[in-house]
Formats: sequence, structure tokens, C-alpha cells
Amino acid sequence: MKQSLIKTGSSTESLDTASSSLLPKLKDLPLFSNIDSSVLETFVSTSIHQNFHKNNMLYAHGDEAHYFYIIQSGWVKLYKETLDGEEAILDILTTGHVFGEDALFSDNHHTCYAEAIETLDVIMIPLPALAREINTNNQLALNLLAAMSKHRRQQEQHIEHMSLQNAPQRIGCFLLRLCKANDPSPKELLLPYDKTLIASRLGMKAETFSRGLSSLKKSNLITVKGGTVIIHSIEALSSSCCSACSHIYPCPDIC
Amino acid sequence: MKQSLIKTGSSTESLDTASSSLLPKLKDLPLFSNIDSSVLETFVSTSIHQNFHKNNMLYAHGDEAHYFYIIQSGWVKLYKETLDGEEAILDILTTGHVFGEDALFSDNHHTCYAEAIETLDVIMIPLPALAREINTNNQLALNLLAAMSKHRRQQEQHIEHMSLQNAPQRIGCFLLRLCKANDPSPKELLLPYDKTLIASRLGMKAETFSRGLSSLKKSNLITVKGGTVIIHSIEALSSSCCSACSHIYPCPDIC
Repeated sequence: MKQSLIKTGSSTESLDTASSSLLPKLKDLPLFSNIDSSVLETFVSTSIHQNFHKNNMLYAHGDEAHYFYIIQSGWVKLYKETLDGEEAILDILTTGHVFGEDALFSDNHHTCYAEAIETLDVIMIPLPALAREINTNNQLALNLLAAMSKHRRQQEQHIEHMSLQNAPQRIGCFLLRLCKANDPSPKELLLPYDKTLIASRLGMKAETFSRGLSSLKKSNLITVKGGTVIIHSIEALSSSCCSACSHIYPCPDIC
Repeated sequence: MKQSLIKTGSSTESLDTASSSLLPKLKDLPLFSNIDSSVLETFVSTSIHQNFHKNNMLYAHGDEAHYFYIIQSGWVKLYKETLDGEEAILDILTTGHVFGEDALFSDNHHTCYAEAIETLDVIMIPLPALAREINTNNQLALNLLAAMSKHRRQQEQHIEHMSLQNAPQRIGCFLLRLCKANDPSPKELLLPYDKTLIASRLGMKAETFSRGLSSLKKSNLITVKGGTVIIHSIEALSSSCCSACSHIYPCPDIC
């Protein structure tokens, strides 16, 4: 089993205690909405600010969980590994996302791997501090319930897409969600991470992804130049993708 | 959009107020672990006991949510429907499962369809009663968090299987989980619902399911007689399936 940097202490990243400038950032997170400043100050005072290089492991499946993580910048992938050594990507997260907190409900052990896929800047807050607070702070428990419920709807949409959308539709859907993130709908997009990772994120092999991308190009829906994609018509692409989905573009907060 | 029986009032099922004999059943549910009897008595006093025939709809995607449901017996499928009219099954649940409570975090609207796939006997408890209680009862919020977290791990395993297991492995895994439910590992199993539904539950087309089942038969791992499956060797079947999974048989509580 792979070892996380935190457990082995082999990290080469800089560690420094997070400053009180973090407080406004925490207040902006839905997880900490309507939570007293005194609680957040406790979190800040025990937090660590850490950078991880690309391909560095934050934690491994089965590791005892010491922290939960708030992304300041960069990208992390959460994944499982089969006995055969294959990776199944569960999520790829970026700025503002919180992860690792679900270990609270798995006997304080992580149930997947977390690895930086680009330079990653995170705030690490001790998990016992969250556990103590959540046991008495009902607002925090409700906020975490809301976050988990949103994640559940996102997973349901992912399962729906893997069940019913073909490869071009899943790729088109991924591109449309990037448009939404870059409102008001620019048509030229920079892919956020490399194509092999996008394929894995969408639950398909690299060859299937390539064929799907070619199919979208042949249908004159997109043009691809390296890591840049030009969508010719949002309407035509969404018409093609959303017919095999229970939502229409632009879809609600589950994306 | 399909209408649920509850909204349209077109149900032909019998309605009767649930009796206090329900209390012990509620106490046995993990969701209500360590919850005061007085709280559960309030739930019982406002609950409804209802039967649904096969193919009856409990609620539709987008319906305002009035209740959450506890299954006494029978089977229900939770699913999404695409614009094309295809179904993506999210879950198939039976005795002891709780569902519909997640509408609390979707503006009190259901985000999928719920339909009886066999005669279904449920306790329906008004959602506002749960909402009121959860806003002040931290133990109940923590119980719901634990339930959601378990569901999240189940969904993650489903996504992992859809990404990396082939059809025979997914079918074999489904059969092995039935063995686990019928501890100590009987080798002759009655399929819990029809093969078309199992295929959908596993996110594959009926033809793919048939080919996968044939492949398991040709490999001499199973024999199929109508709705009965005989597993020749649990060890051989798990060896074949679990190599493409991050867990080994018997896998933990996520199944």
C-alpha cells in the first residue's frame, strides 16, 4: 500500500502555521456558513498551510486520518486502486473544495487515495477538532449534511451518465460544465488537466476518450488544438449531450 | 413528467395510522440509534403505513416531498429518467432501508423517481417532523451524517465497478454480495428481482448482462436455472471478480 507524505514524514514541502488571514476564507465556505468566528478561529489556530508538488500523495487508502483539507489552489485527484493496480478516479477537485472530512465516519481512516495532479496549496485542519465541534455544534452538522447531500447528487449524476451516455456525450457534458464555470459561456476553453486524467475522471479508457473526441470533431461540434477546445455552438453540443441526461443545460448546482 | 400516487391521490392502497408497535422497529434502525423514545413516539404518531403494488409510483422527480420512507418489506427502485426516456437506476432497496429523506437538502423536492418493483410495505413519516427535529437534535444529525457517509462509500464502489470491472465481474460481484447477505455463504441463490432490473442496477444493457452471465457459465463458475443461481466455488468466483476491485471478498459494510 502506498504511504502518504504526512505519515512517512518524507515531505519536502514547506510547512508554516496558517495565519489569521485565513479566517475570511473559511467564512466564505458553505461548510462554515453561520458558524461562530470563535469556532473558526480555533480551526485556524491549529491549521497547517502546506504545498504539494505534482504527483505527491496526501494520504493513502487505509491511512489513519489526521486532517481534513481545504484547497487554496491547484488540483487533487481522489481515487481507488484495484488489486490489479488499476485506478478508478472518484473525483478531481480544485480551489474552494473540502475533502478528507468523510474519514470521520469511517473509523478515522481514509477510504481512498488523494494525490496532487498539479502544484497544490491546501489548508490542513486537524480532524479531531472537527469531530469535537460537530458533536455539539448542530449548525456545523447541518452544513456538513448539506455538503454531503450535494455530493450525493453529483455522484448520482455521474452514475447516470456512466449508465446511459455514450463517450462523445460524456465528453461534451464535461466541456459544457467548464463553460458554466466560466460564465457567460465562452466558447474557447482550456482543458483543466491532461486528457488521460479527463478520460479516467469520466470512467473511460484513453482510447475511448480519443474516439469520443474525434466523433465530436467529425460532427463539427468542436475543434481541438492541443489543450484548447473550441465549442462551435453551445446549443448544438447541449442538444446532443443532454438528450441522454435527466437535466438540461445549464444544469443545476450538481455540476 | 410522471405523477406520484401520493400527489395525485389516485392510490388504491389501504391507509391506516401506524400503531405504537412500530416503536421497537424504529429503535432498531441505525438512523434512530440513541434517539429518545419521546422523539420516536412523535414520528410514530404522525406516520402512515402504506402498501404499494408492483409498478406503483411513490414519488416522481421534481415532486414536492411530504414524507420520508422506511421499508417494512418488498422492493423499491430509485431512478432518474433522461429526456430520451431511458432509465438510470440509482438504487434498489429492501427491508430496513430508509429513503426520501435527502429531499431535506434539495429544497424539499425529490431528485429522483421511486417505484415499487414488488409489493411494497412502507412507513411514511412526514418530512417536516424530521426537519424540525434535526434542526435541534444533534444526535439525529450525526446519525444521518453516518448514514449519508455509508451511502457515499457505496456509490463510490459502484462508480469504481462501472469504471473498471467488466460485465462478468460486475455480475459475479452482485452474486457474491447476495451470498454475504445470506451468511454463512450458501451457494444456491434466488435472484432477488428480475434479470432486466439487475442489469439496469449494474448499469449495463440487458444484452450485456446476458453475455456476462453466459461468460460466467462457460467459465464453469456458476449454473443458472431460471431465477436460481448456483455458485460452484465462492473462492473461484471472488478470485475472478475481486481482482478488478479495491476490496476483497467478503468486503466491508459498503456492500
